[in-house]
Amino acid sequence: MPHATEGNAMCGNTEYGRATFKRSRSHFADRITADGRDGWPVEAGRYRLVASRACPWASRAVIVRRLLGLEDALSLAIPDPLQDDRSWRFTLDPDGRDPVLGIRFLSEAYDAREKGYPGGVSVPAVVDVPSGKLVTNDFQQITLDLSTQWTALHRPGAPDLYPERLREEIDVVMAGVYRDVNNGVYRAGFATRQSEYDAAFRDLFRRLDLLSERLSDQRYLVGDTLTEADVRLFTTLVRFDAAYHGHFKCNRFKLAEAPALWAYARDLYQTPGFGDTVDFHHIKQHYYRVHTGINPTGIVPLGPDLSGWLTPHHREELGGRPFGDGTPPGPVAPAEEVPPSGRPEHLRLGS
Amino acid sequence: MPHATEGNAMCGNTEYGRATFKRSRSHFADRITADGRDGWPVEAGRYRLVASRACPWASRAVIVRRLLGLEDALSLAIPDPLQDDRSWRFTLDPDGRDPVLGIRFLSEAYDAREKGYPGGVSVPAVVDVPSGKLVTNDFQQITLDLSTQWTALHRPGAPDLYPERLREEIDVVMAGVYRDVNNGVYRAGFATRQSEYDAAFRDLFRRLDLLSERLSDQRYLVGDTLTEADVRLFTTLVRFDAAYHGHFKCNRFKLAEAPALWAYARDLYQTPGFGDTVDFHHIKQHYYRVHTGINPTGIVPLGPDLSGWLTPHHREELGGRPFGDGTPPGPVAPAEEVPPSGRPEHLRLGS
Repeated sequence: MPHATEGNAMCGNTEYGRATFKRSRSHFADRITADGRDGWPVEAGRYRLVASRACPWASRAVIVRRLLGLEDALSLAIPDPLQDDRSWRFTLDPDGRDPVLGIRFLSEAYDAREKGYPGGVSVPAVVDVPSGKLVTNDFQQITLDLSTQWTALHRPGAPDLYPERLREEIDVVMAGVYRDVNNGVYRAGFATRQSEYDAAFRDLFRRLDLLSERLSDQRYLVGDTLTEADVRLFTTLVRFDAAYHGHFKCNRFKLAEAPALWAYARDLYQTPGFGDTVDFHHIKQHYYRVHTGINPTGIVPLGPDLSGWLTPHHREELGGRPFGDGTPPGPVAPAEEVPPSGRPEHLRLGS
Repeated sequence: MPHATEGNAMCGNTEYGRATFKRSRSHFADRITADGRDGWPVEAGRYRLVASRACPWASRAVIVRRLLGLEDALSLAIPDPLQDDRSWRFTLDPDGRDPVLGIRFLSEAYDAREKGYPGGVSVPAVVDVPSGKLVTNDFQQITLDLSTQWTALHRPGAPDLYPERLREEIDVVMAGVYRDVNNGVYRAGFATRQSEYDAAFRDLFRRLDLLSERLSDQRYLVGDTLTEADVRLFTTLVRFDAAYHGHFKCNRFKLAEAPALWAYARDLYQTPGFGDTVDFHHIKQHYYRVHTGINPTGIVPLGPDLSGWLTPHHREELGGRPFGDGTPPGPVAPAEEVPPSGRPEHLRLGS
């Protein structure tokens, strides 16, 4: 069975320790494609997405699935935000088993794919339901394939999150966001040497300064509609004040102190498909209780007050057509609603 | 020799562990008085104050000494902000020895007073120079005695920080500030159970809400001049964003997000005798590197940007006479100046 190594303290496949923090390459990089060239054709109902709401890498897939209306085609399993030494667990489900895959630990799907796989167990993971085998845990590719390979199953009015004519620019923006922001907060948080932390902190905030500037007069990162780039920046920003600012020491400023980024993030949060996938309770529990190497007491801060996520952002004044020629997704299916404990209206603090 | 117990991770005498965090009563509570009734008469040049600039309890004494102009009468020793297992060390001085007391560790003065004293070594400590003996480490009493017993040595124009007619009100205000704020941040930060932390957090922010309200239309806590109550609240507020907000998880809001308290704190910071005693570098190094039980990596955050301490506060509009019928203290003696590394103008971050 795959070990739940220290790397599994994170939701991606990671190694951290004395050396500079590194995010490992995904081990299982098969692709689910329209033509099935890797042996995994797109097929409604065949696959199950395992995605922690705590995890920014997994949350990308949850958001894209919602935006594209793939909920019926690709079902969703939400593990407990707290891994134990066997990694991700389905302890939120009746009898502690995922009702579709019938397994108690995500590692069982990894085992089914490759007996004795020595790497970590990470989310997002897409599992083939009939065989119970993991297909892919390639967090960088999964969402792009949902956009470009699963088109036959998209809802009517689904946006094009990775439009051909903008891909070059999207890729460039996402590369900087990945290095300095998505992964940068982890580099800062898991640094074991001051110099590593300092470098990650400077890269992170230099990039956030550039992004603030870019977003001060345009509503979205690339073009005038939502793209994959916005999804990827959002999943880090939405965790910023709740986790990274304190827990990962990313504290030059709170997101709530950065006007353009904060308005941008609230705009996305309030767009159907984004905020309705976010569980702040899962986020805080996961970060503060799982990473005992940086928070040995496991105490979860009560702050900050998160009710500000619902305040007006006024970004409509910048124009933009969130869904381009498409439409917003409909309401979240009742079974997938984020419980009140995870929503900002329930996370107001103080008088 | 007194042991540097876990309690010495803090600047006051403390016990923390599985039980609810408790601040021990000071062990040495002799008083230095005008009449010398405990054997320690007030006398210019006889005593030495040992006070870390990192420590809020010790910093009270450093501020009051400045406000009252006692610098020449009571000399000051500043230990390294990082204690080792022998507690406070004079490693900042030539040859690692305090030039007046001739000792390398503050524990030597405790030893001279009581061989085999089993408690912790804490600052503030007042040492009798001729005998090398510790006189008192009673942080609650030291500043009150500077105000009320050392009057013959006060500078001309020294303020009355503990005026008779206001003592009752000052004591009441200080009791709440002590319990919920000064000590409250430590209760939150050193909690080992979630319920303890939650209670401390709620008490802290409830009190800060009350203080915000009180300070929204009056410039100082009691009366219309500076008092001991302001000194005691200030020493916690000035550490709030630099240390307590992240390190101690006191994160309902940053001080910089609480308009009345933030303006009040800046007003004091910019008043001679307050900010000119503060070394943010000592503060951050101490908290983040000494408390390995809550920050095992010892990484010191680069944030937040502290340059805001120098911005206009507009509190003069509320009236008040900071020094009453007295005057502000003169400039800091060159030997006691806070080095640039500890000043907000050098702690600006980003573009």
